[in-house]
Amino acid sequence: MFEKILINQDRLLSDIQSFGQIGALEGGGVARLALTDNDRLGRDELVRRMKALGLRVSIDPIGNIFGTRAGKTTATVMTGSHIDTVLTGGLYDGTYGVLAGLEVIAALNDARCMTEHSITVAAFTNEEGSRFQPDMLGSLVFAGGMSIEAARSTRDSAGVTLGAELDRIGYAGTGHGPEKIISYYELHIEQGPVLEDEKIQIGVVTGVQGISWTRLTVTGRSAHAGTTPMRSRVDAGLAAMELVTSLSATLKDVPDQLITCGSFRVVPDLVNVVPQRCVLTLDLRNPDEKLLLRAEECLSQTILDIETTYGVSIQTETLARFEPVPFDSCLIDRIENLARDNGYSTGRLCSGAGHDAQMIARLAPAAMIFVPSVNGLSHNIAELTLPDDLCRGTQVLLDAILSSVF
Amino acid sequence: MFEKILINQDRLLSDIQSFGQIGALEGGGVARLALTDNDRLGRDELVRRMKALGLRVSIDPIGNIFGTRAGKTTATVMTGSHIDTVLTGGLYDGTYGVLAGLEVIAALNDARCMTEHSITVAAFTNEEGSRFQPDMLGSLVFAGGMSIEAARSTRDSAGVTLGAELDRIGYAGTGHGPEKIISYYELHIEQGPVLEDEKIQIGVVTGVQGISWTRLTVTGRSAHAGTTPMRSRVDAGLAAMELVTSLSATLKDVPDQLITCGSFRVVPDLVNVVPQRCVLTLDLRNPDEKLLLRAEECLSQTILDIETTYGVSIQTETLARFEPVPFDSCLIDRIENLARDNGYSTGRLCSGAGHDAQMIARLAPAAMIFVPSVNGLSHNIAELTLPDDLCRGTQVLLDAILSSVF
Repeated sequence: MFEKILINQDRLLSDIQSFGQIGALEGGGVARLALTDNDRLGRDELVRRMKALGLRVSIDPIGNIFGTRAGKTTATVMTGSHIDTVLTGGLYDGTYGVLAGLEVIAALNDARCMTEHSITVAAFTNEEGSRFQPDMLGSLVFAGGMSIEAARSTRDSAGVTLGAELDRIGYAGTGHGPEKIISYYELHIEQGPVLEDEKIQIGVVTGVQGISWTRLTVTGRSAHAGTTPMRSRVDAGLAAMELVTSLSATLKDVPDQLITCGSFRVVPDLVNVVPQRCVLTLDLRNPDEKLLLRAEECLSQTILDIETTYGVSIQTETLARFEPVPFDSCLIDRIENLARDNGYSTGRLCSGAGHDAQMIARLAPAAMIFVPSVNGLSHNIAELTLPDDLCRGTQVLLDAILSSVF
Repeated sequence: MFEKILINQDRLLSDIQSFGQIGALEGGGVARLALTDNDRLGRDELVRRMKALGLRVSIDPIGNIFGTRAGKTTATVMTGSHIDTVLTGGLYDGTYGVLAGLEVIAALNDARCMTEHSITVAAFTNEEGSRFQPDMLGSLVFAGGMSIEAARSTRDSAGVTLGAELDRIGYAGTGHGPEKIISYYELHIEQGPVLEDEKIQIGVVTGVQGISWTRLTVTGRSAHAGTTPMRSRVDAGLAAMELVTSLSATLKDVPDQLITCGSFRVVPDLVNVVPQRCVLTLDLRNPDEKLLLRAEECLSQTILDIETTYGVSIQTETLARFEPVPFDSCLIDRIENLARDNGYSTGRLCSGAGHDAQMIARLAPAAMIFVPSVNGLSHNIAELTLPDDLCRGTQVLLDAILSSVF
């Protein structure tokens, strides 16, 4: 029997806090938008820490950073996430997964544990998509889903290309990531309230749900709110509201179906004028592609119904459409069992947000581990995961990696 | 038997068109915002026309213009409306009633008709309320509902006081309106689609409906659209939409009830964020005060229901509340009979918009005559009333005034 290798909890927590000083905001939280000077400072510190742990660092042309601890073979078990943040982000989204990967390395170093296969800790470029679109760009390029030329041509809202910024901060590398990935584990905060609400310590992530974004433009007829009888109106605002409430009711009992109307604007937006036009967005998500397709069909049917009932015309535009990504069932089972072996409570859930793991899943068996977010908050300076949860997640990550490297 | 006095149709139509040149917009329509230079040009022309018809002109301290044709007594039958417009208005809203009054005078002059009582044509200051609030300000002050000091202190959006502008354009008069008003008739375009839809030539206006404006602030909890299960959400936008659609359904069968949600804004208004807050307005109108009160009670009940169902909190603020104003039943009957005597089709309706007549109703028996608006359009450069309708309305006004001056 080997003695169980444990993470060093104090070191993990201290490493996370100290990394949070890079790009720290005055009132708390962090700003490390992709490829800004703050992102560079974060990258420099990450590379420094990787080298201090004895990792061989390689940076690929899109700026993904790979730190590898050599095993007997070059086949590698990879873990990682990202260190870029939204404009007013927290200390944990992405960064936690990368630093937990380094703690795994440190714990193995402490234990003088030599592994059969190599272990790679990765930090992917521009995961958030706050500055350059699409999000998860670095892992998408690494997985072969986007050319390096296309990625470098992407512009931020000021018109600056990603390529120019990558060159400027010195992270357009000439290296490359691992060629044979045995499996990929990503540890991440949940960014939602489910684990906390259900008192689950370790979230076993079964996949990333599918997303369907639609912009709807409802056109009616502007009219005087005082002189136009209800029967003579073609009220674009009321029709749009009925569309949203009606579709929400229809989809209420569809398993795991999410529906959000996040943006809703009426024109001319005056108290005494019946709206002439309404522009709104609908965000539909489901882990099951069949159910997501069915939700889209419900939307189409509701549009027809509303057009008939209200006399409006409705144009639609697809803003985004991603199929669900299921994770590897063996890795899912393994994470669940390892978490339970540690005595942690577990629950399976599907990720609501996108993650680098869904891109790496194109190359290798992949899975994710979630830990609870206090109040479900993320993309917010008040983002918080409690120390015990941070440690539990990292221990499961260590155990999962160890289960794959021999 | 006297011979029936008829209006001069060509003169009426020509007078309306020529007056529409004052403040004419390039693409059509008129801009004579209250107390601007364009309004002054309109006032100057109106006074010139009044004097040319032999009227004694008096301007009161709030700038209301009164032109009086003397009868044997100083008791007067008054008609009138306003010549200010919205920023991009039409040729008919208000102005038609004033110029029709002058045509009545001209027709009586042509017929050398001496009347027992006097006749006054009035043009009231700042009826539209587009520049200074409240609307119908001039007639409100004349009716004693607002002090001249308070009215002069009102500021436009640039901070300029009404008093300063009144002084600047030279229309802060020292005269006064008639002291004994026998009755008040106001001729106006409908500004809605009812007369046109129902093929009615003369609208017999029974009163002005009551108005209740409420601003609602619905507060929920912002959340990630991908990671927050439906059951964990407090969606301010969806709650607000349900409030509007539900209240609309509840009030659907209440006689003459109007409900409009004209302004609706969600915060933060992002496709993938569950709205944290929603600010919307509700415009409720009914000619019957009891029914309007009942609609307000329905709103209060719906607010409580939505708070319970969605977990949101809802604050309300009353932006405006006016009771319905019923017009004088004798005058209403008289207008209806006179219109029918001319062979015109008639229909009774309640005014959806506010008018100076509702203020003068505080001082004397008052009533209104409506003529059809093409496509129900008003406050719009495409505002139009057909020549035959303009003439029919003016003939009824002449007949109504004649019925009151002997």
